[in-house]
Amino acid sequence: MAALVDGARAGRARDIARLVSLVEDGSAEVPELMRELAAHGNAAVVIGITGSPGVGKSTTTSALITALRARGSRVGVLAVDPSSPFSGGALLGDRIRMQEHATDEGVFIRSMASRGHLGGLSATTPQALRVLEAAGFDVVLIETVGVGQSEVEVAGSADTTLVLLAPGMGDGIQAAKAGILEVGDVFAVNKADRDGADATARELRAMIALGVRAEGGWTPPVVRTVASTGEGIDGLLDALDRHRAWLVESGELEGRRVRRARDEVEAIVLAALRRRLASGELAAQFDRAAADVAAGAIDAYTAAGALVGRLVQD
Amino acid sequence: MAALVDGARAGRARDIARLVSLVEDGSAEVPELMRELAAHGNAAVVIGITGSPGVGKSTTTSALITALRARGSRVGVLAVDPSSPFSGGALLGDRIRMQEHATDEGVFIRSMASRGHLGGLSATTPQALRVLEAAGFDVVLIETVGVGQSEVEVAGSADTTLVLLAPGMGDGIQAAKAGILEVGDVFAVNKADRDGADATARELRAMIALGVRAEGGWTPPVVRTVASTGEGIDGLLDALDRHRAWLVESGELEGRRVRRARDEVEAIVLAALRRRLASGELAAQFDRAAADVAAGAIDAYTAAGALVGRLVQD
Repeated sequence: MAALVDGARAGRARDIARLVSLVEDGSAEVPELMRELAAHGNAAVVIGITGSPGVGKSTTTSALITALRARGSRVGVLAVDPSSPFSGGALLGDRIRMQEHATDEGVFIRSMASRGHLGGLSATTPQALRVLEAAGFDVVLIETVGVGQSEVEVAGSADTTLVLLAPGMGDGIQAAKAGILEVGDVFAVNKADRDGADATARELRAMIALGVRAEGGWTPPVVRTVASTGEGIDGLLDALDRHRAWLVESGELEGRRVRRARDEVEAIVLAALRRRLASGELAAQFDRAAADVAAGAIDAYTAAGALVGRLVQD
Repeated sequence: MAALVDGARAGRARDIARLVSLVEDGSAEVPELMRELAAHGNAAVVIGITGSPGVGKSTTTSALITALRARGSRVGVLAVDPSSPFSGGALLGDRIRMQEHATDEGVFIRSMASRGHLGGLSATTPQALRVLEAAGFDVVLIETVGVGQSEVEVAGSADTTLVLLAPGMGDGIQAAKAGILEVGDVFAVNKADRDGADATARELRAMIALGVRAEGGWTPPVVRTVASTGEGIDGLLDALDRHRAWLVESGELEGRRVRRARDEVEAIVLAALRRRLASGELAAQFDRAAADVAAGAIDAYTAAGALVGRLVQD
């Protein structure tokens, strides 16, 4: 383990990949690994990238990698695949779209399966992020699929959340419905060479101006990109940089990182408690409770209260 | 409370609405209410309706209500609005689209805010569903926004999950990416009068045939609808009825209801444990742990282990 951590810190892709695999497999060594990594920096700029299927998330991620590499940054990417609790694995590898970066030693790309039990964002993403931070990447991009809850989780894991839209994917009301206005720090209207890009950008700006976003001191900018040609990517990077500067100056960066740590600790606590519910005598009591509730013999609150009483210290 | 329950069981819309509000507000009386309701029937057919923004979920829900009313069923609808943890409330009321049913006493429609902490599906949906079941609705439709995690939760709450797609909203790969293939019991290609409907239905069938869906004994049908005109709604209702018959014959209905009860009990247990983490001395310890983890002074597993040790009986 110590050798793997040393290798990862020296930037060896194979060792980084092994550590991420340990994390993703839920290895029993994860707690030890996290203890080893805790002391090793969390200086990476973490950017979440999200939006509906088809808006061009992978293409934009790829264009951002190219632009970040051009200014010398080392870039890690975690691409979180669709939630699939039934198959327990990823259906697609986003890596396929990013082969142009495959031979670049300054880039590490990892497709992660979302297991669904903590939402669209893989439950192991915070730990994988720690691995990439400890490995010294300057920027980590977390790309997630989906609308709604996934965005909220990206906002929780990233310093800056970039929300992508595309013309014709739905109007402003749909954007509001999907809950994206509240979580975006920076918005990009991708495929901006298509009809309707102006309208989409205008509607977005109008909704932002309406103050749906309550946070003070930062008005999310709306930039236009054509990720497939690289058009507008420099402007997007500028917007991301400006948000970073605001985060640092306002103290919000520290606040977000404490909240992220809080969520991570809570998730580990709740996972431990779920494991207790699923083992030994408690598991048998839980099974009986579920059957009784389904049959209408008892209500869920009474059943839950009895389980909590058995689980918790008074 | 007893009077409200009696009123709801007698079908008085105002009393049903009050009970759902109690549930949605997280009233301290909810456990007592659930005890009162436990004995009163859970015979409703529960159908989840989901799909990406813009596929026509509300229009389809409205068309299904009309068709179900024509055969004499009483219909309850829970429309779960977008996850909005920042505003804590719904941005839109789906009721607006369903005004044609507003004066029908056999229909009860309720827009619910998703609070985000348990995913796209409102955390209080299972309890609201109990209210509608106890009120004797024959069918309860749960409409949710979003792709990904939301679908998974609909699949957990409903007996039958209907997934809507529309031509041009993305090809089969996008559908797979969004994780919808695994959760749909019935698929409808809505807006089937548009270009590309054939291709979308064909791709869906091909992907279903590829066996992405592991469950034995039921091959999800793909029907075509134009919900705005009512075209294909009878065929959709037939498909939903056939799935219902299969659920009963195969014993899967009982299995799903026990799993639903299990999820409901677990959610209440975890919510109770989170409340303990957020109060008294544990809360102070939790705050310190989050700050220490963010600063790299301790790792999240060690911090979580200490909290679990304080929380749980040995």
